[in-house]
Amino acid sequence: MSIRVKILGSSSATPAHRRNHTSQLVNVEGKYYLVDCGEGTQLQLKRYKLRAQRINNIFISHLHGDHYLGLMGLLSTMHLMGRNKPLNLYGPRGLAEIITLQLRYSETIFNYDLKFIEVDASRSQVIHEDELICVHSIPLNHRIPCSGFLFEEKTKNRRIRREMLPDDMSVRNIIRLKKGEDIYAEDGTLLYKNKDMTLPPRQSFRYAYCSDTKYDESIIPIIEGVDMLYHEATFLEEHLDRATSTYHSTAKEAATIAQKANVGKLLLGHFSARYKELEPLEAEAREFFAESYLAIEGEEFILDS
Amino acid sequence: MSIRVKILGSSSATPAHRRNHTSQLVNVEGKYYLVDCGEGTQLQLKRYKLRAQRINNIFISHLHGDHYLGLMGLLSTMHLMGRNKPLNLYGPRGLAEIITLQLRYSETIFNYDLKFIEVDASRSQVIHEDELICVHSIPLNHRIPCSGFLFEEKTKNRRIRREMLPDDMSVRNIIRLKKGEDIYAEDGTLLYKNKDMTLPPRQSFRYAYCSDTKYDESIIPIIEGVDMLYHEATFLEEHLDRATSTYHSTAKEAATIAQKANVGKLLLGHFSARYKELEPLEAEAREFFAESYLAIEGEEFILDS
Repeated sequence: MSIRVKILGSSSATPAHRRNHTSQLVNVEGKYYLVDCGEGTQLQLKRYKLRAQRINNIFISHLHGDHYLGLMGLLSTMHLMGRNKPLNLYGPRGLAEIITLQLRYSETIFNYDLKFIEVDASRSQVIHEDELICVHSIPLNHRIPCSGFLFEEKTKNRRIRREMLPDDMSVRNIIRLKKGEDIYAEDGTLLYKNKDMTLPPRQSFRYAYCSDTKYDESIIPIIEGVDMLYHEATFLEEHLDRATSTYHSTAKEAATIAQKANVGKLLLGHFSARYKELEPLEAEAREFFAESYLAIEGEEFILDS
Repeated sequence: MSIRVKILGSSSATPAHRRNHTSQLVNVEGKYYLVDCGEGTQLQLKRYKLRAQRINNIFISHLHGDHYLGLMGLLSTMHLMGRNKPLNLYGPRGLAEIITLQLRYSETIFNYDLKFIEVDASRSQVIHEDELICVHSIPLNHRIPCSGFLFEEKTKNRRIRREMLPDDMSVRNIIRLKKGEDIYAEDGTLLYKNKDMTLPPRQSFRYAYCSDTKYDESIIPIIEGVDMLYHEATFLEEHLDRATSTYHSTAKEAATIAQKANVGKLLLGHFSARYKELEPLEAEAREFFAESYLAIEGEEFILDS
């Protein structure tokens, strides 16, 4: 199992110092999920040679421009490039209206089915499920309704030890073994013990994306123990007042959440334009949580087993 | 007098081959006018070190995404960077609604006065006037309502020959001289002949921007004799069918309009993603109009006297 997170943008509010607006491509075993879509995301996808048409699910956290203004252009390009497979768009109330209004004035009807799924930013719930993952929403504490997203790989079956498998084993019994059952004969005799025949499932991972939000410990029960957490770190602690008044977090606060939630690794992003150099943000976070990293464009963070 | 046109994007529909979506900065004697604003325009302005806050007037031709999807981000950045001087936004019906809806959901009120001026795409009229220029709309022939823009420098006063000016000349008489009048004494005696005291005004220029449009000679009376014409040239003549069906023009058609309208110079742009190399488009245009140039990002075209 694997989750690969490619960072497409790391800037908050105004683009600066060659940093783009927020967007991430979450790649689960080759399936693409896009999280937020700031202006220029389609160009960033091109830059990193990531095929936009492979994206089937897009998650928008909230309706501040730096998180969604690249969406209309990306959706249009998908249409113009001949897309016909459906696309799911998860986002807050208002997103569908904004997209629909622009389609109306451009007199455009997409060739593909764009399905809007409204995310209720006031509670955590499963908003998406497919054969690989469940995605849970995470209510964040921002100036306008805002959701984070928890990507949870589904638990896989136990792995068959092929060298132990007799030629006459039925498919039905193989499925039983994968599910962790022992195999009995019709008279109730134990034939094969599961632990002899199988290995544990490959590890499943969890990745939580939390942007934008002020410091809020109420998210901890939802993200507790995730393998990797992205938490916005717009400011340094010396600008805490600014962070608080704008409903953003400092690097120290992001690290404190990571430490209290006992996560594996912390990614920092959504940096204010006031910081040309970002190392001080990383250093500040590492004082409180050692496994802290700058999530800047082009970086890829991999959970793999 | 001078008009400088800086090209910020040259790609149609989908961005490709490192070409950005349409936008141009028209600089008239140091005053900035932005024409169209495709996705990424604010980044292009930064790239070419053009200060967004110097823009006081923005003209949007039509509501296809490749001509306006960078606008919301640019307007937001102006706000976040502390703008408080007013901004005029000229564009088709619907633009104000699209901007206003997005402001509503982001719960943003700009610090500056954003004034929407709706442009009627069905006729040519003066839509903007200031101390330097008049801007006329140009009805174009596209799939949805679309206007081009004619930038016309105002005729300047005659220039005083300072070496001829006696010390006792009154301000009132200097103004008369600038307007081309002779100066008479109270008894009606001719004191100074204008042609001895002044030089002709500096040259005024006209620049016409025509994108997007299919070939349509009805624009010729409006753009007749302009010093510089930007005319979209999305396709080569070998793809004329595609140009016609999508309400676009070929390089040959753009050049034919330039030749029939007797313009000074032709800029070609809005290139289809199907062309990696653009020289064939320039070559095709030059067969019909020698003074044809590719308007690609970073290029600046200058009218100066």
